[in-house]
Order: sequence, then structure tokens, then C-alpha cells
Amino acid sequence: MTWSARTRSENIKSFKENKLDLLIIGGGVTGAGVALHGAARNIQTGLIDMQDFAGGTSSRSTKLVHGGLRYLKQFDVELVADVAKERTVIGKNAPHIAQPSYMLMPVYDETGASFNKFTAEVVLHLYDYLAEVDEEWAHYMVEKEEVLKAEPSLKEADLNAGGFYLDYTNDDARLTIETIKKAHEYGAIIANYVKAVDFLYDDQKQIKGIIAKDMLTEEEFEIEAGIVINAAGPWSDEVRNHKDAQTEQKMFPTKGVHFVVSHDKLPINRTIYTDTGQDDNRMIFVIPRGNKTYFGTTDTPFEGPYEDPEITEEDIDYLLKAINHRFEGIHLTVNDLESSWAGLRPLIQDENNSDPSGISRGHDIFVEEDGLITIAGGKLTDYRRMAEDAFRVIDEKWKEASISFDSVDTKSIPLSGGDVSDPNNFQAFIESKREKGTALGLTEEEADSLADWYGTNVDTVYEMVDKAKSYDMPLKDALQLAYALEHEMALTPEDFFARRTDTLLFAIDKMEALKEPVLDAFEKELNWSKEDREFWNQQLNDRMAETSLQQFKYN
Amino acid sequence: MTWSARTRSENIKSFKENKLDLLIIGGGVTGAGVALHGAARNIQTGLIDMQDFAGGTSSRSTKLVHGGLRYLKQFDVELVADVAKERTVIGKNAPHIAQPSYMLMPVYDETGASFNKFTAEVVLHLYDYLAEVDEEWAHYMVEKEEVLKAEPSLKEADLNAGGFYLDYTNDDARLTIETIKKAHEYGAIIANYVKAVDFLYDDQKQIKGIIAKDMLTEEEFEIEAGIVINAAGPWSDEVRNHKDAQTEQKMFPTKGVHFVVSHDKLPINRTIYTDTGQDDNRMIFVIPRGNKTYFGTTDTPFEGPYEDPEITEEDIDYLLKAINHRFEGIHLTVNDLESSWAGLRPLIQDENNSDPSGISRGHDIFVEEDGLITIAGGKLTDYRRMAEDAFRVIDEKWKEASISFDSVDTKSIPLSGGDVSDPNNFQAFIESKREKGTALGLTEEEADSLADWYGTNVDTVYEMVDKAKSYDMPLKDALQLAYALEHEMALTPEDFFARRTDTLLFAIDKMEALKEPVLDAFEKELNWSKEDREFWNQQLNDRMAETSLQQFKYN
Repeated sequence: MTWSARTRSENIKSFKENKLDLLIIGGGVTGAGVALHGAARNIQTGLIDMQDFAGGTSSRSTKLVHGGLRYLKQFDVELVADVAKERTVIGKNAPHIAQPSYMLMPVYDETGASFNKFTAEVVLHLYDYLAEVDEEWAHYMVEKEEVLKAEPSLKEADLNAGGFYLDYTNDDARLTIETIKKAHEYGAIIANYVKAVDFLYDDQKQIKGIIAKDMLTEEEFEIEAGIVINAAGPWSDEVRNHKDAQTEQKMFPTKGVHFVVSHDKLPINRTIYTDTGQDDNRMIFVIPRGNKTYFGTTDTPFEGPYEDPEITEEDIDYLLKAINHRFEGIHLTVNDLESSWAGLRPLIQDENNSDPSGISRGHDIFVEEDGLITIAGGKLTDYRRMAEDAFRVIDEKWKEASISFDSVDTKSIPLSGGDVSDPNNFQAFIESKREKGTALGLTEEEADSLADWYGTNVDTVYEMVDKAKSYDMPLKDALQLAYALEHEMALTPEDFFARRTDTLLFAIDKMEALKEPVLDAFEKELNWSKEDREFWNQQLNDRMAETSLQQFKYN
Repeated sequence: MTWSARTRSENIKSFKENKLDLLIIGGGVTGAGVALHGAARNIQTGLIDMQDFAGGTSSRSTKLVHGGLRYLKQFDVELVADVAKERTVIGKNAPHIAQPSYMLMPVYDETGASFNKFTAEVVLHLYDYLAEVDEEWAHYMVEKEEVLKAEPSLKEADLNAGGFYLDYTNDDARLTIETIKKAHEYGAIIANYVKAVDFLYDDQKQIKGIIAKDMLTEEEFEIEAGIVINAAGPWSDEVRNHKDAQTEQKMFPTKGVHFVVSHDKLPINRTIYTDTGQDDNRMIFVIPRGNKTYFGTTDTPFEGPYEDPEITEEDIDYLLKAINHRFEGIHLTVNDLESSWAGLRPLIQDENNSDPSGISRGHDIFVEEDGLITIAGGKLTDYRRMAEDAFRVIDEKWKEASISFDSVDTKSIPLSGGDVSDPNNFQAFIESKREKGTALGLTEEEADSLADWYGTNVDTVYEMVDKAKSYDMPLKDALQLAYALEHEMALTPEDFFARRTDTLLFAIDKMEALKEPVLDAFEKELNWSKEDREFWNQQLNDRMAETSLQQFKYN
């Protein structure tokens, strides 16, 4: 079942010709969840995004599936319980994306420390209790010596103890795309780079569809839909305010910045979750990933523009200070920062709380007078439940109109690539696919890495071997590119480098060698003109300069 | 071992003649704890109180030994863990005072509700976890129907669920007096109605004692002591500010009011801990006790005077509104309020928090330049640990002076009357003493009640039978009076009615019949003049009028 630029053209044709039951604006993880839920119920579901899938917030998170341990300090137990239990659901339905692992929270005797040894133990106990964590993954506390043995790079001074606890690593963009691919399998009609520019109204002044714009061709067309749901994340207010509808501002995003360094420069063995040590009531994650280490995040109010939020010198100084404070003998400078990203948390205004770190990060659903439904806020990990909540509102509207659809329990729907026989032993799955990869000429490590990245879809990836061999690049990259073009609706090199793979973020050193052959492949497969190629080449160069923080570096 | 007005005269003589190692100002539960800890270590310890023991805060609490469940909403887990674990210690060392029982927290769907069904369950789980509660006393949640079956008086509307959880009933004044009696057994020199009016200084401007005043004779005298510790509760600042020492205000007490009604008027089967339902972020206790029910408390800043804080019409309106809101078909008016008390929480200023209900109620110890140590704040339940903390500071001072004393673990010292063989089966103890009581002419119920009230001291109570029979009142009351005079240093009728027994608060209807014979007995035993008798008669009448809220009642 292919899902490519050709599929997209067919889908746009279908949008023009058929009336949908439900149209989702926004192909981030929230919209993806709604699309899967809808399509699985045989609801005629459409989804569009003005950028690529996960192009906004959903590819710019800390890339964990976590329950929000920190919110327990505010006794926000419901949010944490809901979200933390969803970790298990995602781990089961997408073992190739979310994998359980022990993370370490060191406890320092320091001014403004979030937790001391005792409260750390209580909060980790509560976290496990709320998440209903299995005994085998229960948290445990260790003394200072054990912390340093596990993570010798941590600063020794003022270190008191540490807690090991379960959380899940993740790739946010992959989570979004595998959800969307599954929605596609169930029949959802999906297109990236299609923007909602205005609404269509019936004579009751109720929304009956949208005016859409193909952002690649600039063509405008109408999409009719019984219900339109706005899942545009930080752009939710912009969607709500199309033309006449002037509604109050609800979204007050904050920016979160992450940096990537070579693992040698910040050698850690597992995810570390720690106070910044700056007495600012904030905590940061430091996460090893392949031969890189990344860390973040900041949390500062952000006013826009929302596309590619800028990283500032203050962001760099803030995170470097925190890291250099927390780790012994580590003196990172801006020149060590290989890659970076900045994302926006789609926070909903809470009039009772002006401190962004203090806001509880729940989600909300509001219905406009013209029938527009907006689902906003929420945590990445919670996206499946957010879709359930959205359908509570949507089903209510259908009930009034005497329309009904099948029911579904999305808890038991594996995402695309996630249908492995024993999700709890994903390593066994990887090993079972090793030979198939090495037979094609991949190293064992490459084969394992592809099985890990694509899950059960790795079989389809390997089916692309003939096409892949026509590309002038290493086989592993070529297989990924061929699969992205044919099965993951990659339309631009950045789609491939930033969201179908993590090359731009975690292997930016490979970009120079891959850039030209990838552009060649896109040119050929998508029938680009010379101007097209020049445009996307420039776009990619700009993005690389930005990602590598070139403007901040010195010689 | 008697402990009476005669003992007090001997003790005052001893104060004049001997230098103490340690003098405690304040015979509330805090001072009592310090006295027991000190005396048990063979430290020459003295204790004075300007009123009766427990005459201030320590006889005016909600009369529970509880861990502060509510503070968990602020994730104040350390305070709760410390305090909740002390419940067990008190239950073991004073089973005649603190007894475990299931209390009920109903959960309402109401604006401003502290907890919903889920957060209630989490907070009760956390409470048990922090207190290390045995499985047999673990909390459990029940549905609405079960709540109403257990407590049919509760309002049904908006009721959602309920949680049963362990806490301990208590009598605060008895806890204080049994602690002081134990300190006396260990050799502490103790006197009520002796006030510290000024300090004595050595040539290093260090406090070396106090000028004391016998409040009954107005005689002033000196007490020398190596260390003076101020445990005067709300009066701590007043003690600190004697004469020259002008120090900043630290105590910002809040007033807490309680009312007693006939159990028929508010028929409940167990302690209920509930929101006020007034959307004010406050919770109240409603507690059955014999044939009465009492409820409270308010929490309002109070500026003084600190002796007998006044109850206002607002206090009455506030609590009646909360009770009448929460219970079905209950329409209490001020005329139903049989008795009342108002106490002051000795809160230490927390500059970061202006909301009295939001202040964490920990304790603090501060040392003045002149050597005065003040221990203030804290929760009743935590008094034993507060004494331990005080001695950390005191021992530090002694260490500097190369003085050392025995060590002690007060966890394993039963209070006076508490040395029963199996504290976990106190009912068996009560039954074992039944026959001894009935042999004297008491009913079984009376005998049980005395064993319950006095614990192992009930044997001494029964030894007072000849003296008791000389008083013109029912035998049970007469035994209590004889014991209070001979073994509990009761000096005034109010000492007897309000703090050696709970007659004034929970059996005010018996006061009219008992008043004259009790005054007769005091007159005889303490060699009162006619003027003395008239003075204490008037004092008691005033107190009864105040306690019964006469000025607020209508015909």
C-alpha cells in the first residue's frame, strides 16, 4: 500500500469531489490521533497540514514519552496518571518508537532544588503508582556513590542521592507519521502542504467545509465536511480567526529549545533528568542518542512568528550554563553545539497562573458558534486520549443530527510498523530481521537500526532495494529515502532529513555527503524543474545553517 | 507517687534553692515533651506555666492525632510523613489517649472541592504510604451508596464517593498532662500558675535564669538554670521580649473555633473530614464523642489578647453554614451549640505565604544572642519529635561547655497511664479492669470509661475511693476529682472541669449539679478562704457562660 506524492494528488482530487464526514486541520500528533480514531470507525475522515506532518510542535519536543513527573510537585496527579498510563499504551502499539528505560534523577543539596532525597523517593513512588508500573520497572533510590558509578560525568559536589525510574524514549515525528500512516490504511484521506485558508458556511452560518490551498501549486479548492476540527497546535487561534470570526486569543505558546552535541563531549549512559541548578524551579533532560547527546529544554513565552521559532543567544547561554554547572569537567561552548531545534508548547491560557513552568499542561476542547471544534493544549504522550475526548464532543454533535458510526478502542490498534508479536521483547523482533538486512548487503548494525526505526514495515523497506540501489548513496540511506518517497509522502528533502529520518538533528555531519544525491533523487522521482531543485536546495541550506547555529559560532 | 498542690509548693521551694540544668517556660504539649525528654536523660529539668498545663493552645485543638492529610495537596510530604508516623508512636505510648479509627472523607462534585474521587484516592494512598500504615488499616474508597449507608446524615446531592482512612482520636489536654506526669516521675520539677516575668543575666549578658511569679500568691522569686527554653506557644514573642530584648515578631497565630452539639442533633457514626462546601479551600472535621458531636475549625488571623480568644458571630455563622450545607435535614442554630472552644495555632511567620490555610505548619527553633532558645510552631502530633529537635540545639550548647548527659529514645517511653501490655488491644485492658470498678459500685460503663480515660493509672484512681466517698457527688466524678487533686495538680475548678476531665466541653449539662460539690471539695482540700471560693466560683461561672455562648443565644 503505497503512500506518496502520487497518493497526495489523488487525495486532493478526492477532497474536491467527495464530501467528508470529518476534516482535521493539522497533521501534528493531535490531528494524527483524531484521524486514526476517526478512520478506524469508518468515518470518512480527511486531514490536511499546511506544512509537512509533524512540521510544527510534534517534531520539536524532548522526544520522550513521559508522564510529567515534575507536575507531581503541584500534586497534579490526574494529568500525570492519565499521561503516564498512556506511556504503556504507546509502548505496546509502537514498540519501534517508544521503548521503556530507566532514567536517572540525581538529587543535589542545592539552593532551589526541586526534590531532596526523601521527596524524590516519594515523587518517584507516586509516579510509579499513578502509572501502574510493573514491579520489574519499579523505581529505586541509590546513594551518591552509586549515582557517580552510573554517571561519572555528574558533578560530585552537593550530590546527595539519585533515583532510577521508568520512562520511555521516543521519536515524536515518527510517532506522528506512523499514526497517520495507520489512519491512511484505515482509509483516511490525507495530504501535507495543504492549508485551510477560509471556511465555507451553510445558510445557518454553520461551517460546512473549508477553502484549501495546495501550498506547492498555490491552487485553491473547496473541501466539504460535516464537521471541521482544528488541531493546529500553536496556530489554533489563527485557524479560529479566519476572516470574520474574531475570537479571543487562547493560545499562549512557550518556546522550548534543545541542543545536540557529540556524545564524547557529554558522555552519559542514560537519560538524566535534573534541576538546572540555577534556582529557577526548572528541570532539564540530558539524553544520549546514538553517538550524540542532546539536552533541553527552555520554557519561555513566545509571541511569534510560529514557523521555525528562533533560537536566541539567551537560550544558548541558559542551557550551556545549566549543563556546565551540572557536569564535572564539561565545558561546552556554542561551537560544540552540532544541531538544535526549537519548538512551541501549544499552551492554553490559564488566567490563574502567570508562570509558564507552573501551568498545568492539560488539553481543552472548545466549540465555536459556527460549529468549529478546536482541540488544543495537551501533552504529546496523551494524544490518543485527546482524540477520544475530541470524539466525545463530535459524537454529541452527530447524535443531535441522528448520525452514528462504529465504536473503537484505539488502545488496541498498533500503529503502522508496530504490530510485532511481542512488544515487550522488541529486541527479539530486531534480531529476527537481522539476516534479511545483511542478505541485502547491510551491516548487522545497519539492519538492526532499520528494524528498530521501521518496526514491521522494515519488510517493505527491504522491498525497496532495487529502487534504492539506483540512488548514489549508502544502501541504508538509500533504502530509507526510497521508502520515504514511496510510502511516507515525503515531498521535500527536509521532510526526509528532519521528519522521516533524524539525520538533520542527530547526524548533521552526514548531511554534506547526502545532500546532493538526495536532491537528485527528489528531482527524478517528483519530476522537479531546475528551479524546483534550486529552491529546495536553498531551503535545505538555510535550514542546515539555522539548525547548526552558524550565526552564533565563532572561529 | 502523689503530684498535687503540696507537690507544687515543694517544687517552688526547690526552684528557689537549686540550680536547674534546664528550665522550660510553658506547660503546653511542646514544653511537656521537652520536660519528659530532659528528665528521662537525668537532666535536672524544671517546667513552669503561667496558667494551668495545656491552658492555652494544647487544650484547644481539634483533639485528633493526625498527620495533616490536607497538606498533601501542597505536596508537603515531609511534614506529613514525619507527623503521620508519630501517630503510631503516640498510639503505642498512650493507648488510653490516642486510638486508631477509620475516618471518612466524603467526595462531592462541588465548586472548589479539594479532591475528586481520583485525587482523594491518591491522597489517601499517599497518606498511608508516608505514615507506613499497616495493611489492616489501609484506606479504601467506596461509592456514594456506601457513604450514605455509613453516614445517612450526609447530604446526598453532588455526593460522588468517599474514602475511609486511618487517623487517631485524642484528647490534647490529657496528652499534655500524661506527658508532664511522666516527666514528674522521672524527677522533673514542675509547677503550674508560675509565670516567667523577667530573665537573669550573667556578666557575659547570657541568660542564667528567670524571675518567676507565683500567680496564686503573687510572690516573685528567682529560678537559676543553665539553659532556658521558651515553649510558650502563642506567647513565645512575649517571653522573648521580656524587658530589654526587643526582637521582631515571629508568631502570627490564627484562631480555630470548635462547637459541641448533642449527638442527636448531628448524628454521625465516625469522624468526617470534609470540605466546607463554601468554595474557600478549607476543610472541617465533624467528630462524634460520647453523646455529643463537635465540629471545627476556623482558621483566621488573630491579634490578641491570647488568653481565651473570643468567639465571634462570624465564627458561629461560618461553621453553622458549613455544617447545615453538608448534612441533610440538619438545621443547627446557635441555640443548639452547647459548648465551644477557641484556640490559637502558634504559627511562625512565613514571608512567602499570606494565606493562613496555605502556610505549612512545621516547627522552628531559634536561639537569641542572650542564649534564650525558643521552640515554636509545629503540630500537636509532632511534639515528641519537636523535643528531639530542641535537644539537638541544647546538646550543641552543652557540648561547647563540655557538659554531657545520658541519651534517650523517647519513642519507647510510655506516658503516664500508657504502660499497658498490649497497646494494640486496649479494649482487652479496659475489660480487665471492669470488675475492679464495678466492685466499688460503678456501673460497667463507668468503669470502662475510667479505664479508658486513665489507662493503667485507673488502679490509683480506684485507690482514691475512700476520699472520693467523702465528696457529695456521683462516685465516678468523685473518683476523678480526688485523683485530680492528689495526682494531677489540679488547683482550680476549671483545671478539673476543662483539662483533667472534659466535663466543661462535652458534658456542660452536668456542670450545674457538679459545680457546688466540686467547689466544696477544692475549698476543703486546698484550705480556701471564703474569698478564694467566691473568686473561683465567679471565674467558673464566667467560663461557663463564655463556653456555652450565652451572649449569642436567643429565646
